[in-house]
Amino acid sequence: MKTVDIVILGGSAAGITSAITARRHHPDKSILLVRMEKQVSIPCGIPYIFGTLGSPEKNLVPDAILENNRIDLLVAEATKIDCQRRRLLTGKGEIGYERLILATGSLPTRPPIPGVDMDGVFPIFKDVEHLRLLQQELQKAKQIVIIGCGFIGIEFADEINKIGDKNVTVLELASNCLNLAYDAEFCIEMEELVRSRGITIRTSAMVKEILGNGRVNAVKLKDGSSISADVVILGIGSRANVTLAKDAGLHIGPTGGIAVDRTTQTSDPAIFACGDCAEKVSFFGGRPSLLKLASIAQLEARIAGANVFGLRRESDGTIGVWSTAVGDLAMGTAGLTESAAKELGYKVVSASAEGPNRHPGNMPGATQTKVKLVFEANSQVILGGQIRGGDAVGEMINIVAAYVQRRMTAENIATFQIGTHPALTASPIAYHLVKAAEIALTRM
Amino acid sequence: MKTVDIVILGGSAAGITSAITARRHHPDKSILLVRMEKQVSIPCGIPYIFGTLGSPEKNLVPDAILENNRIDLLVAEATKIDCQRRRLLTGKGEIGYERLILATGSLPTRPPIPGVDMDGVFPIFKDVEHLRLLQQELQKAKQIVIIGCGFIGIEFADEINKIGDKNVTVLELASNCLNLAYDAEFCIEMEELVRSRGITIRTSAMVKEILGNGRVNAVKLKDGSSISADVVILGIGSRANVTLAKDAGLHIGPTGGIAVDRTTQTSDPAIFACGDCAEKVSFFGGRPSLLKLASIAQLEARIAGANVFGLRRESDGTIGVWSTAVGDLAMGTAGLTESAAKELGYKVVSASAEGPNRHPGNMPGATQTKVKLVFEANSQVILGGQIRGGDAVGEMINIVAAYVQRRMTAENIATFQIGTHPALTASPIAYHLVKAAEIALTRM
Repeated sequence: MKTVDIVILGGSAAGITSAITARRHHPDKSILLVRMEKQVSIPCGIPYIFGTLGSPEKNLVPDAILENNRIDLLVAEATKIDCQRRRLLTGKGEIGYERLILATGSLPTRPPIPGVDMDGVFPIFKDVEHLRLLQQELQKAKQIVIIGCGFIGIEFADEINKIGDKNVTVLELASNCLNLAYDAEFCIEMEELVRSRGITIRTSAMVKEILGNGRVNAVKLKDGSSISADVVILGIGSRANVTLAKDAGLHIGPTGGIAVDRTTQTSDPAIFACGDCAEKVSFFGGRPSLLKLASIAQLEARIAGANVFGLRRESDGTIGVWSTAVGDLAMGTAGLTESAAKELGYKVVSASAEGPNRHPGNMPGATQTKVKLVFEANSQVILGGQIRGGDAVGEMINIVAAYVQRRMTAENIATFQIGTHPALTASPIAYHLVKAAEIALTRM
Repeated sequence: MKTVDIVILGGSAAGITSAITARRHHPDKSILLVRMEKQVSIPCGIPYIFGTLGSPEKNLVPDAILENNRIDLLVAEATKIDCQRRRLLTGKGEIGYERLILATGSLPTRPPIPGVDMDGVFPIFKDVEHLRLLQQELQKAKQIVIIGCGFIGIEFADEINKIGDKNVTVLELASNCLNLAYDAEFCIEMEELVRSRGITIRTSAMVKEILGNGRVNAVKLKDGSSISADVVILGIGSRANVTLAKDAGLHIGPTGGIAVDRTTQTSDPAIFACGDCAEKVSFFGGRPSLLKLASIAQLEARIAGANVFGLRRESDGTIGVWSTAVGDLAMGTAGLTESAAKELGYKVVSASAEGPNRHPGNMPGATQTKVKLVFEANSQVILGGQIRGGDAVGEMINIVAAYVQRRMTAENIATFQIGTHPALTASPIAYHLVKAAEIALTRM
């Protein structure tokens, strides 16, 4: 039996990033990454397989990233963690470890709806074979129903719609799509855009049953209506994959993830956990957080990878920063929305600024851009921000992420030094982030 | 004679922003903006008049921004500041003020070269009439020589080249274009791109004389060669416009700007100054800074406008954040380059990360993006960053601006929470800013 200094279980964002980070900070240690999948899908790229990219093979993380970092790879199913003897049992034998990093990810949630196990009903697994099958089914199907209109729902709907000759319907339980990510004003704009592209969205729609005869043929709602369906996609979230950890006796946290401290260490000091499988706390108040994002996974993986042989990094909790794009419209969010902040009990002041992202506004590429910032009223500390606009929203939201992480106040942001350029940004006079902070200050 | 609570002298970025800010923070005060120009050009948009936009009229700051903020406008030339009696004398009469904000901007530097005053030699004034004349001359001209290859030089060259049927030559004294903004590796790439678009760049080129007979016909270099020229543009910088302030007895700073403290107050407590006319200090070490940017002007204007009736804001000094774009290539910089940091005496560690700004890299819009971060070796505090890539560089550099302003360390950045999206950013595993910080850490 071979013994490895650092064994990583899981080959997606958290696994790869923790492996690379471990290599950077521990150049002399042996590192082995164990994963079940022959090929690894880029998790956030999965919706784009069906339209923009064209096949699961065009959405892979290249294994060269492991080779280049001197990380050994074992494709095998892990069956047991033996904490006492520091061994990982796999279908291809036992491996001893000095340190183990668990990056076992999450599994799609299957809602307790009658008929959910029928053929033609697809939870989204990251497995390439599964995605290839889904793609084949989608190509044959005419009526596609997606249950859940968060990011997965919106992005799948729009990409499947690009295949052509499909009727795509998205069902959302809440009163708005994306309502966990944005305040209603932003959600509504995205809904309108998605609808204008020929997709049906039904909000406040509760699924009662999936109908069919072994194979799905319709989705029945609580209001009595039903929608015919050749394929149903479940996009209603995921739960931490903790089976092995639980069986090994590691503590499990309140939301069902592997319990970790701020250093990503589990209840066994030789074992760390990061990514979707690990329990998280919110940056805001430190309560348990259900957020699962590849970008959070990479942060935790950088902490785990650096900490395995001596603690040096700690997490401040998850802020939640993400973005989405449909057509030419991109939207991003960092931290708390106004509604989420109020729900948590914060006294909130918000302000928005709107205008083109070029100056003058007739420069090529100009897109109407809107920024909304949310502050705690007494301390003036920023709690979050939302942006709608063009492609650059994906980076602009990371400026807000910096504001939030450094707990900047509205005054700090109003006197924030920015760079501007006619062909790339709004004018210095009207730069959205600074302007929104200034407006917020007049309301405090 | 009427007396106004807040009089602002100057109608460009600093003047407008200080007026709007004063309005926000002092809703009941009367505000009058006095400026010389009938119409105000967007300063950074000026190069784009000649190609992309097509005319000076398409590059104007709309006066509606003043009306909407209840700011009165007087178009008149100011002739004297009477500090004792708190009066501004103008060609259209005297105005009393409680507080005066000077935003008189800068004037283009005219180098002491023989022939520099000939017809056909153009410094760049922001005046619309002047720009209209320059445009007419450029349309007739075949041979255009630009002296100075900073941002102004590069952007004018590329825009004039777009008119078609022109031979454009840019002359730069230093060994690289843009050498104050970027380290050589970035400068060289921009030079190569500009050359590939049909523009001649000559570096290490010292102009000895401008030749002609009342009207320019050539530029003679120190090496004896000469370049024929129908029009010569001077793009070698600018100096603070301080004539009135000086005459009024206000203190002048070491670089020739109006002396101000961190609150933008001048030596007269009733007078504030902001923008190109005001003396600046660097964020790095607090020494006098020659940087003049619209984005710095807006920061100082937000300080001045908020402070006039009670100090509330202070400047930490100028970081310097800016970007430029030629064709599909955008470059941005925030803070110190590696070479500037070394020159100032910092012990420097730098690291770069390169890769596409989409994931997978075959997503539409993917552009090879490179980030270079510069850190102080002992404290690990970031000193600056440079980025090359697509349009989003204009916002991405503002993330670096946040890192710099909050004096974040390489560890802070390596564990920075970012948002990523396949259609908008690099992958979480390879996100450039975080990766560059991680690489830098292995070198500390």
